[in-house]
Amino acid sequence: MWGKLSAEYLMDCIGYGAHDEKGLLVPIKFKRRIAGPDDVTFRITHCGVCYAEVKWVFNKIGTTKYPIVPGHEVVGVVTAVGDNVKRFQVGDRVGVGPFCNSCQKCEYCNKNMENSCLKQPILTYDGIDVDGSVTKGGFSNAMVTHQRFCVKIPDTLASDVAAPLLCAGITVYSPMMRHHMNQAGKSLGVIGLGGLGHMAVKFGQAFGLHVTVLSTSPAKEEEALRVLGADAFIVSKDEAAMKAAAGSLDFIVDTASGMHPLDPYLLLLKQEGIITIVSAPPEMKFTPAILFRGLKTISGSTIGGMKEVQEMLDFCAEKGVTPMIETIPINYANEALKRLQNKDVRYRFVIDIENSLKESIK
Amino acid sequence: MWGKLSAEYLMDCIGYGAHDEKGLLVPIKFKRRIAGPDDVTFRITHCGVCYAEVKWVFNKIGTTKYPIVPGHEVVGVVTAVGDNVKRFQVGDRVGVGPFCNSCQKCEYCNKNMENSCLKQPILTYDGIDVDGSVTKGGFSNAMVTHQRFCVKIPDTLASDVAAPLLCAGITVYSPMMRHHMNQAGKSLGVIGLGGLGHMAVKFGQAFGLHVTVLSTSPAKEEEALRVLGADAFIVSKDEAAMKAAAGSLDFIVDTASGMHPLDPYLLLLKQEGIITIVSAPPEMKFTPAILFRGLKTISGSTIGGMKEVQEMLDFCAEKGVTPMIETIPINYANEALKRLQNKDVRYRFVIDIENSLKESIK
Repeated sequence: MWGKLSAEYLMDCIGYGAHDEKGLLVPIKFKRRIAGPDDVTFRITHCGVCYAEVKWVFNKIGTTKYPIVPGHEVVGVVTAVGDNVKRFQVGDRVGVGPFCNSCQKCEYCNKNMENSCLKQPILTYDGIDVDGSVTKGGFSNAMVTHQRFCVKIPDTLASDVAAPLLCAGITVYSPMMRHHMNQAGKSLGVIGLGGLGHMAVKFGQAFGLHVTVLSTSPAKEEEALRVLGADAFIVSKDEAAMKAAAGSLDFIVDTASGMHPLDPYLLLLKQEGIITIVSAPPEMKFTPAILFRGLKTISGSTIGGMKEVQEMLDFCAEKGVTPMIETIPINYANEALKRLQNKDVRYRFVIDIENSLKESIK
Repeated sequence: MWGKLSAEYLMDCIGYGAHDEKGLLVPIKFKRRIAGPDDVTFRITHCGVCYAEVKWVFNKIGTTKYPIVPGHEVVGVVTAVGDNVKRFQVGDRVGVGPFCNSCQKCEYCNKNMENSCLKQPILTYDGIDVDGSVTKGGFSNAMVTHQRFCVKIPDTLASDVAAPLLCAGITVYSPMMRHHMNQAGKSLGVIGLGGLGHMAVKFGQAFGLHVTVLSTSPAKEEEALRVLGADAFIVSKDEAAMKAAAGSLDFIVDTASGMHPLDPYLLLLKQEGIITIVSAPPEMKFTPAILFRGLKTISGSTIGGMKEVQEMLDFCAEKGVTPMIETIPINYANEALKRLQNKDVRYRFVIDIENSLKESIK
């Protein structure tokens, strides 16, 4: 399993992992490679919990290689760097998101779009690493990652709130930037108010947009308007309200992962409007005539390139854009995955690895 | 029916029209307004036959207001101009496409995108004109149209081949220009080889693109490669060929009007690739993960703005880009609609109004 690496190149790690499809996360010991010349080693202090964890831990996609140690919103403090690493030094706070490496040679890697690497980027956990081993994620005490896939956590950004930015944050920030939605005065719609959706609302506010939250649940109005400060709220089943808002939005971020129709939202877009899909329902349907009559666009986006992740973190630090989180100890991880499946979190669990992992394993 | 206009402002016209949903086109007499200060009056010489005629004449959309005189790829010779008309003079050859007017005031009209007019452009036939009358199309002897919706047919472009450019041509040209597909060396896929598809192939060649025709019918290979000169041909049901072409196309123009899946074509796109839908199947489906993993885009497009139509005609005249047509007399129109429904035309019928209308009515 550890490919070409012999014991002397390996370091002992502890974490929480699942051994099978029952998905029970239990203390686990495993090994990682020690830092090569381009690697950054860091002790993990915080790790966000994304819905992807549910999919992977319970093997819902069918590709999980057990034992699995999840976690891809990872923040920690550097403990060692390889000889080629100049951008980070011991003591720096760093972050690693859903990807820990890529081919670094293709057209897309060369234009800082490692997320679109033609050979596919390597997943931070359950991916096949360059040495042939299966990558292990951030529900653990330490990590070794190629420097290109590490970002610096800005001084004014706390580690706990920085963690969810590395996946939930960049996933909505990247398409907003790509489609010029950082221009004040434009109108943004956000479908779904979870980890991704609430970040879209926050970025929308920071960019000076008019933000409308679109939800199937009237119960979320109070939260959307009062707590998150959105400008408007529409219950998507309310046909009159949807009709009144027809043709009013420049851009919609669709974060809803359950099956849902696209047409009602396409009708909310202005001419030339764009809806970006960042979630993964099994299938989506739309009426072509609605799309082409308004020169509208359905676009897909996933994560972002490493340069953009760093820019986003710097922007968040400058503007005070942070996720709403619930901090938990690692032995609460199983309960957290249960609550995630029930959509019972506002809006992201972050595991305080630093203050709970060692204690929970003793 | 003729709204505010009294008899002195009306001119007598003849044409071919249908009186009911049986859709039989028969000689018909009707009236149009005479030219106002911004209008161009012209005698019609040629009119293309688009699949839209089938939809409207047989009331397949359910909005047809009988009697209907179809035809929205109209070319003729100017016989009179209003006082405000400086761009055209008597004797000029002009063209009118699917739209004969718009609000001319909104954001989109102001940026030369009358096709996206916020109050919706007025259809050249079966539309409600500014005077309240129902517009009548180009299967007739003469037309009166606001100068903004008339284009000049360049001297080196014959009237018969110019006609289909006004709808089929601009429908594929506009999204190609919008998505920067006039850059030599890029790769274009064309789904469907009809009136629109064959024009996409021709524009692709004129732009210096590598053109791949995608068809459900192996029988079209010879035609696509030898007659139209496409660079490659793939039968879309041939899984091995589709797999071999995965990730190879910058852009796809989807002209297929029947129900068809999008996923196989999305997989042909490169990262950041775009598929433009210019046809109108009742519904389309796709898998969001395919879209977002490659930052791919599904975009819709319809016709183009009037400035762009003129630019396209000038480009076609300069580069010799013309449709393949079958010229017919107007009393063949019923047969032509039948053959259109059987996809039995290579690739556009054009009615020689000038040499057949009067004779067929005598």
